[in-house]
Amino acid sequence: MIGQAALLACDWGTTNLRAWTLDDAGRVVAHREFALGVSRLAPGEAAERFQDEVQPGLDAVGLPAILCGMVGSTLGWTVAPYLDCPAGLTDLAGCLAAVEAHAAWVRIVPGLRCAGIAGSPDVMRGEETQVLGWIGQDPARARGRHVVCHPGTHSKWVLVEDGRILRFVTAMTGELFSVLTQHSVLRSDAPAEDTVAFDEGLAAAAEGDALAARLFTARARVVGADRAADTTPSYLSGLLIGAEVASVPRLMGLSGYMPVALLGDAALCSLYARAFEARAMRCETFDGEAAALAGLFALYRSGERP
Amino acid sequence: MIGQAALLACDWGTTNLRAWTLDDAGRVVAHREFALGVSRLAPGEAAERFQDEVQPGLDAVGLPAILCGMVGSTLGWTVAPYLDCPAGLTDLAGCLAAVEAHAAWVRIVPGLRCAGIAGSPDVMRGEETQVLGWIGQDPARARGRHVVCHPGTHSKWVLVEDGRILRFVTAMTGELFSVLTQHSVLRSDAPAEDTVAFDEGLAAAAEGDALAARLFTARARVVGADRAADTTPSYLSGLLIGAEVASVPRLMGLSGYMPVALLGDAALCSLYARAFEARAMRCETFDGEAAALAGLFALYRSGERP
Repeated sequence: MIGQAALLACDWGTTNLRAWTLDDAGRVVAHREFALGVSRLAPGEAAERFQDEVQPGLDAVGLPAILCGMVGSTLGWTVAPYLDCPAGLTDLAGCLAAVEAHAAWVRIVPGLRCAGIAGSPDVMRGEETQVLGWIGQDPARARGRHVVCHPGTHSKWVLVEDGRILRFVTAMTGELFSVLTQHSVLRSDAPAEDTVAFDEGLAAAAEGDALAARLFTARARVVGADRAADTTPSYLSGLLIGAEVASVPRLMGLSGYMPVALLGDAALCSLYARAFEARAMRCETFDGEAAALAGLFALYRSGERP
Repeated sequence: MIGQAALLACDWGTTNLRAWTLDDAGRVVAHREFALGVSRLAPGEAAERFQDEVQPGLDAVGLPAILCGMVGSTLGWTVAPYLDCPAGLTDLAGCLAAVEAHAAWVRIVPGLRCAGIAGSPDVMRGEETQVLGWIGQDPARARGRHVVCHPGTHSKWVLVEDGRILRFVTAMTGELFSVLTQHSVLRSDAPAEDTVAFDEGLAAAAEGDALAARLFTARARVVGADRAADTTPSYLSGLLIGAEVASVPRLMGLSGYMPVALLGDAALCSLYARAFEARAMRCETFDGEAAALAGLFALYRSGERP
C-alpha cells in the first residue's frame, strides 16, 4: 500500500524536469513532468521555478527534496562540484549540495568525473544516479564487474566494479544525429522508422573508424545510387549507433564477451539492442526511469537527513 | 602577353560562383566572384542569373563558356550525369552537358562516381576538374600513382593512376566542424586560431576511431578541466582534421609512405599540412584555384568546340 508523500525526487536535466513524490518506502505517490530543462532557464531562475511550480505542482511544499542532473551544473541552481571516480552511493550521498526552497531541505546530487580518453577528463550529471539505482535493484550487481550503456544525446558507457562507478566514456551520438538531421546536407524531417535502412546504416558503420567518411555514404547512397531520401534518418541512426557500439567498448578495453546492461528510454534501447545483436554482443535492457527513482531514493536514505 | 578573352570559365559550387575570362592560351583576362552558389538559387534560376549577371559582369556575352561544380547537379542548371571511374580528361571532355545562354555555347562538366565504401557509391562535382587541372600542370603526374587530398566542407581523397581518377573517398569533415560549432553543445563563435588547442585536438584524434566519443572530450576538457571555452573551435578543428588524416588513407588501403598532394584553399591546406606533419606523413600543397582554371581550360580544349 502506498503511503503518504515523504520526499520530492527530481531528475532535472537539460531539456526536461521529471518529478515524483515518494512515500517513506520509495513508492511513487505522484508524478509530473515540467518543461523546465536548465537550457530553457535564465541564470538564477531554477530556484524560483522550483518554488513556484514544482513544489506546489506536486503538493510537495515543505517536503524534503533530492535533485539530480544538470540542475547541479553552472547552468542550473547551484554547482554541486564533480566527485572523482571511483565513487559509489555513500560517496555521492556524502557530498550532496545544499539549497532550500519554501524552507524545505533540498539537496542536489553531484556529478562524476573520471580520467577519460585522449588526456581529457570525462564528466556526467544525472546518469550516475540511474546507474547507482540500477546497482541497488539487484544485490548481484553490487559485486564484480558490470558494464552499463546509457544511450542518449550524450551516451554514457559506465564500468561498475563492486558497486562503485570505476570509469566511463561519453559519446555524442544522439547530438550528432540531431545536428546532422537538422542542419547538414543530410537534413530530413522524415521519421527514423525504416528498419531496412537502419540495418544498412549498422552495416556501413563497420568497426566505427573513419566516421566522417562513413557519414558521407548517407548522402552518396541517395544521389549516387537512387536510395529514397526519406530513408536517410534511419540509415544515419543505424550508422551512428553502430559506430558507437563497435568502437566504444574497444576504446574502453572491454571484453567483447561481457554482457552490457542497456539502461534508458525503451525505444532508444531497442535500437541499441539491434546494434548489439548485429555484432553478436549480449545485452539486457532495463528501465531508466525506475533506476533514476531508485537512485534518488537510495541517495536520500544514505546521506544526511533533514 | 595576355590576349583577348576567348572563354568564360566558371567554378560554380554550392555556396559561391567563381568566374574568369581566359584568352586562347588559358591566361586570365578578368576574374569575378558571385554570391550565386546553387544552394541560394530557386529551381530554374541558374540559367537566368548566368545570362543576366555572370556573362555581362565579365563582358563575356557571346563567349563560349565551361562550368564545373554543383551547377551540374539537380540543384543547378541542368543535370550532367555522373561519369563512372576510372575517368580522365578525355572521358570527361567527351561527356559535357550542353546548354545555351545569350545564344552562346555553354558546357557543364559532369561529376564523377565510383564504388565507395560500405557498399555505397561515392560522388564528386567540381573537385574532378581541379584534380585533372593539377595532373595537367606537370607531365610527371600523368604517369604512376598519386594521392590528392582536397580539404573542404566535403573533403575528397583521390587516387590518380596514369592520369586518370581511379577512385576516391569523401569525408564530411568541414561540415561536421560547421554544424558542431554552430548548433551543438560545442558551439562557439570564437575564431579557430589557437595553435596549442589545435595540436591538442590533433593528439586527441589518435587513430580516428570512436569519433563520437573523442568529440565529447572537446566539451569535457572545458567543464571538467577548466580549459578556456574559446579554444573549443581550434581543438575541434584539430580533432576532426586529425581523425580524417589518420583514418581515410587506411580506409582506402593507401601506403603511409606515399606523399599526398594537398590541393585547395591555402589556409585550410596549412591546417591539414600540420596534421600530416604530426603523423610523420609527407605532403605538398598546391593552389586549388589555379588547378581549377587549368582543368576548365583543358576540358574546353579537349572536347567538342563551339
